[in-house]
Amino acid sequence: MTYSVAVSGASGYAGGEILRLLAAHPDMQITTVTAHSSAGDPLIDHQPHLRSLSHLTIGPTTPEALAGHDVVFLALPHGQSGQYTDMLAGTPLVIDAGADHRLTSQESWDAFYGGAFHEPWTYGVPELIVDGGKQRERLVGAGRIAAPGCNASTVSLSLAPGVAAGVIDPSDIVSVLAVGPSGAGKSLKTNLLAAEILGSANPYAVGGTHRHIPEIRQALTDAGAAGEVGISFTPVLVPMARGILATSTAPIAPGATDAQIRGAWEEAYGSEPFVHLLPEGRFPRTADVVGANTALMGLAIDRAANRVVVVTAVDNLVKGTAGAAVQSMNIALGLPEATGLSVNGVAP
Amino acid sequence: MTYSVAVSGASGYAGGEILRLLAAHPDMQITTVTAHSSAGDPLIDHQPHLRSLSHLTIGPTTPEALAGHDVVFLALPHGQSGQYTDMLAGTPLVIDAGADHRLTSQESWDAFYGGAFHEPWTYGVPELIVDGGKQRERLVGAGRIAAPGCNASTVSLSLAPGVAAGVIDPSDIVSVLAVGPSGAGKSLKTNLLAAEILGSANPYAVGGTHRHIPEIRQALTDAGAAGEVGISFTPVLVPMARGILATSTAPIAPGATDAQIRGAWEEAYGSEPFVHLLPEGRFPRTADVVGANTALMGLAIDRAANRVVVVTAVDNLVKGTAGAAVQSMNIALGLPEATGLSVNGVAP
Amino acid sequence: MTYSVAVSGASGYAGGEILRLLAAHPDMQITTVTAHSSAGDPLIDHQPHLRSLSHLTIGPTTPEALAGHDVVFLALPHGQSGQYTDMLAGTPLVIDAGADHRLTSQESWDAFYGGAFHEPWTYGVPELIVDGGKQRERLVGAGRIAAPGCNASTVSLSLAPGVAAGVIDPSDIVSVLAVGPSGAGKSLKTNLLAAEILGSANPYAVGGTHRHIPEIRQALTDAGAAGEVGISFTPVLVPMARGILATSTAPIAPGATDAQIRGAWEEAYGSEPFVHLLPEGRFPRTADVVGANTALMGLAIDRAANRVVVVTAVDNLVKGTAGAAVQSMNIALGLPEATGLSVNGVAP
Amino acid sequence: MTYSVAVSGASGYAGGEILRLLAAHPDMQITTVTAHSSAGDPLIDHQPHLRSLSHLTIGPTTPEALAGHDVVFLALPHGQSGQYTDMLAGTPLVIDAGADHRLTSQESWDAFYGGAFHEPWTYGVPELIVDGGKQRERLVGAGRIAAPGCNASTVSLSLAPGVAAGVIDPSDIVSVLAVGPSGAGKSLKTNLLAAEILGSANPYAVGGTHRHIPEIRQALTDAGAAGEVGISFTPVLVPMARGILATSTAPIAPGATDAQIRGAWEEAYGSEPFVHLLPEGRFPRTADVVGANTALMGLAIDRAANRVVVVTAVDNLVKGTAGAAVQSMNIALGLPEATGLSVNGVAP
Repeated sequence: MTYSVAVSGASGYAGGEILRLLAAHPDMQITTVTAHSSAGDPLIDHQPHLRSLSHLTIGPTTPEALAGHDVVFLALPHGQSGQYTDMLAGTPLVIDAGADHRLTSQESWDAFYGGAFHEPWTYGVPELIVDGGKQRERLVGAGRIAAPGCNASTVSLSLAPGVAAGVIDPSDIVSVLAVGPSGAGKSLKTNLLAAEILGSANPYAVGGTHRHIPEIRQALTDAGAAGEVGISFTPVLVPMARGILATSTAPIAPGATDAQIRGAWEEAYGSEPFVHLLPEGRFPRTADVVGANTALMGLAIDRAANRVVVVTAVDNLVKGTAGAAVQSMNIALGLPEATGLSVNGVAP
Repeated sequence: MTYSVAVSGASGYAGGEILRLLAAHPDMQITTVTAHSSAGDPLIDHQPHLRSLSHLTIGPTTPEALAGHDVVFLALPHGQSGQYTDMLAGTPLVIDAGADHRLTSQESWDAFYGGAFHEPWTYGVPELIVDGGKQRERLVGAGRIAAPGCNASTVSLSLAPGVAAGVIDPSDIVSVLAVGPSGAGKSLKTNLLAAEILGSANPYAVGGTHRHIPEIRQALTDAGAAGEVGISFTPVLVPMARGILATSTAPIAPGATDAQIRGAWEEAYGSEPFVHLLPEGRFPRTADVVGANTALMGLAIDRAANRVVVVTAVDNLVKGTAGAAVQSMNIALGLPEATGLSVNGVAP
Repeated sequence: MTYSVAVSGASGYAGGEILRLLAAHPDMQITTVTAHSSAGDPLIDHQPHLRSLSHLTIGPTTPEALAGHDVVFLALPHGQSGQYTDMLAGTPLVIDAGADHRLTSQESWDAFYGGAFHEPWTYGVPELIVDGGKQRERLVGAGRIAAPGCNASTVSLSLAPGVAAGVIDPSDIVSVLAVGPSGAGKSLKTNLLAAEILGSANPYAVGGTHRHIPEIRQALTDAGAAGEVGISFTPVLVPMARGILATSTAPIAPGATDAQIRGAWEEAYGSEPFVHLLPEGRFPRTADVVGANTALMGLAIDRAANRVVVVTAVDNLVKGTAGAAVQSMNIALGLPEATGLSVNGVAP
Repeated sequence: MTYSVAVSGASGYAGGEILRLLAAHPDMQITTVTAHSSAGDPLIDHQPHLRSLSHLTIGPTTPEALAGHDVVFLALPHGQSGQYTDMLAGTPLVIDAGADHRLTSQESWDAFYGGAFHEPWTYGVPELIVDGGKQRERLVGAGRIAAPGCNASTVSLSLAPGVAAGVIDPSDIVSVLAVGPSGAGKSLKTNLLAAEILGSANPYAVGGTHRHIPEIRQALTDAGAAGEVGISFTPVLVPMARGILATSTAPIAPGATDAQIRGAWEEAYGSEPFVHLLPEGRFPRTADVVGANTALMGLAIDRAANRVVVVTAVDNLVKGTAGAAVQSMNIALGLPEATGLSVNGVAP
């Protein structure tokens, strides 16, 4: 069976990556692509790398344009998805790449986003530990999926095994992320200009203000954190187009042995197709996951500092966004989970 | 008065940067440049940006070549300075850019470096708080100076004010640094090739093994840490030639108010020419200190995470190495401290 | 049918890219990977992005190890392929990614390479115009294929249509290429270190010395150049891991109309799956072909300068090397030409 | 004597670089900084690297604000300088970093810029050969100076010696430039976003449309070109914040010997402080001139292609713009020409 698909936000980075993955997916037919200011343009003008889709023209993002497909992807700025989702009641599967349907707590929504609160959808990170199982199970047959925040899912995947196993203390997490500017979207902001980013490392949202913080706290609580999740979270823009390298640390839980600690991650991810724990002493780099749906993870146990250190590399646009969305879609539709997704990166 | 200077390791990155600064220093005459494998070559072949020094030829690094100058800079691989320093007894001022004379604890040396232990020299970070004063005072008239490790001094400067004031807890520091590959020197290693670094973030020395850790612990202890200094330290190579962006966090000490916390840094650095605390809500980027001897620092107090976050940007080759050396030299010789050093960076 | 494949030079950049493409090829079974200094290592240690091949161990590059496969790829330094090819007489298809079998003129070989001259093999650039037809036709059923030099094929593809149609003068070509350092291989050379390449544009082989020059002259002569091919060729290393952006110009042939000129390229590439002429006024960028087997081409007719300007973007490791090899293999084996190859790039 | 200076366009890249150089100039007092949309802001908010100027506040760009200084720098978008210059009649020295006063031909202005034509000012490239002398001589005592276009002056300096000496044919020049995005200014355009530039080479203004073309033709005509100057000119944006690497070629004039050719450049630049011809076989890279007012030049004579190839590296913001302006100012005011300017670059 072939599914018809509509993708909104088709001229942006997240939308473009969803389209790149769908173009390589044997079961999907991209029927409709929409956007706001670029409506009327050939898609290829805004996504010149998507040569196989050069026949498509961008239409306006309206409920009418999106309705009538088997699957709809929303890749819109935060706060804009909500209005469309209400009007796509007849669509079997809607996947939102924005934040509107991620948070279960209105209080957190109000504190970090503001504006209308929308109901939470099934969270699109299949490998996350939830209630002793995996989030994958909840995605089977789902009709509404919230793709994750790229930074949030990277940190949550990094620490969930240790939190669930009780071998790390979730109350004093510190995460610092090197991130590429594509995560910020195609926004015309001075601080995203090439001349500002080249040759420079640029922190932003320092001191507990980043919007992915409540999403991480929610995921780690769902993973079984004993007590409050506390996290100091600092993203740093670095001069690479794509990628997240998240260094996350948490105190070792009293009494946890090295074998117990490493074992928690091995058990959680040992059979996952897209989340790989590297051998002891090895740590990943973002280049190795460019274009891939893979999260590579290295783990160190620093007894002198009394902290576990997990370094995780993902491609923010794939495993962090579009790949998570397509992988979740595959599960929801009952397709083989890895369909259309690459485990190999494009390096160097 | 003009001082005659010899610089060893003149074909490397640290040596090159020392030469760049000395070339702009009105009181210094670069008489001798030496190196190992490149001895006999014109300096300009190895440092093609130092046009004003194109008359110099690299000689071999021997005690004879280095002797007889007012000032000698050693920019040699770790473990090699010690042998020369013994033979430069008659030289009034010797500054080592390597690690051989930084650590006061032989136990730390053995654990992180190994090989012969050498006596500690005066540490070349003038702005560091030591025993309620500044390290600057100890540098006046010094004859032997150990320039700092670039990562170490960046983290130490970031946290010393809070440690000295007792407003942060030094036992559970977490530092993650985005660093440029020039810090690794001109070493022919596969992981330093451009194709490996471009488009990638690459962690190394994860889990408590980096050699700058004991140097940080020593500096923060000297700054007045109450109790043991504990630090989780992770450097990440990112695709910029120069620069360190250090994100350092430590728990807020019980009862410390926001005013006390911010006040500690303001007091420590308010009148420093080269260490600048940015206004509240502002954070630095490495581009702004390229070529400058400036450390720019932003501070956030994250009550939700119960941590102080300090983000500091330095040019690893200037404030992190060569600038620290020249600034310390100025102090030792009684010259105005800022002579030959720029507070302005080259940006964008 | 599934073909068994051996890849030598498996720890390098060209070998790694051949493996990446073969891993996604439905008809190929990678049986053997070999290299020199890394023999004995897990492949994943040298190609950490090729997660799907983590079961492979690198063996030594010997005739015995390579023999007995349906297809053998040689990705060795220039001058080393020749010795193996003689010993693979029983192998149905051997594809050399090196230069040893590209040139038909021993005189050119001696002038630009030196060492033993080897017989020319079928040149692996299917879209090149040859004697009024396409090189594709010669590749059908070929048993020995010489994959092209990445810079050479980029320039040859850029200009062959105009040369064949007689609308440009081949005697005074000027080509300047911005190239990524992966084209130079994983060589430990100071000028390829990240700190040397980041933030810098670096010319090399200036003034007519680059080894790809005779290959371009040969291809354009085969395309039907009237008279001698003359070319000023300058490559410039720029800070991107992959990619070639070749700006090639040639004088407009007397009397050639705009329609004739543009028509020559349209006719040559209008139905090619992997070589795309962009609409008038559009020019390509390398980001759009990263990971893709696509050559994107823009053409301008500058009457004031009396020159045609063709700007072509390719991924040096794909269309420039490994993709050309796999595409040629597909043709030689009678498989659909595009099998295992992507027309879409990974951008941004 | 200290001169009072006003700089307009102070929040942009060109304005920022003028300020950086003036801040290091012993004879200049920066009194006034102005801009449009950022008027009212502290300068340090827009130029966070200019720490020594953190006391300055940006005022509005009005004739009143700029009047009353010894020297005024205009760093405004093209077409905007003209209006102010008329109103600064009483200012002894006005230097325009824009294009408004560069061209002597209204026809060229109309064809490439359009809008009101303004009278040409003294061209600010001291080393250019003009009528057998140097442009320097015309700058002595000048009151109105047009700083050059960065690409234009780089190409003009590259070829003027050969043109003046008659050893190259100016009718068929081909120049291809790798340029950093700071040359495009702080403009909010999608194609200047970091995610678009990182990992990519991007041509623009292909086919004879770049606005610097008439400026090059004018300069080479002034240098003594025999006959019309013809040039194919292609700039390529590459991922480095600063820098121009211009590869320029021209046919060898009939009968010109190697000695005559090389001699032309040696004679022209042998005693220049800021334009250096590298030894035979050496070519420059942009990293070596970052922050410097130096143009580094390498020359090859390619007899097979019958072309001279000149590769020149400059920092577009220094020698290409602000450095040329300050150097010209020094000459105009009778100060030592190199005051406040560095010949050494900041590398790596």
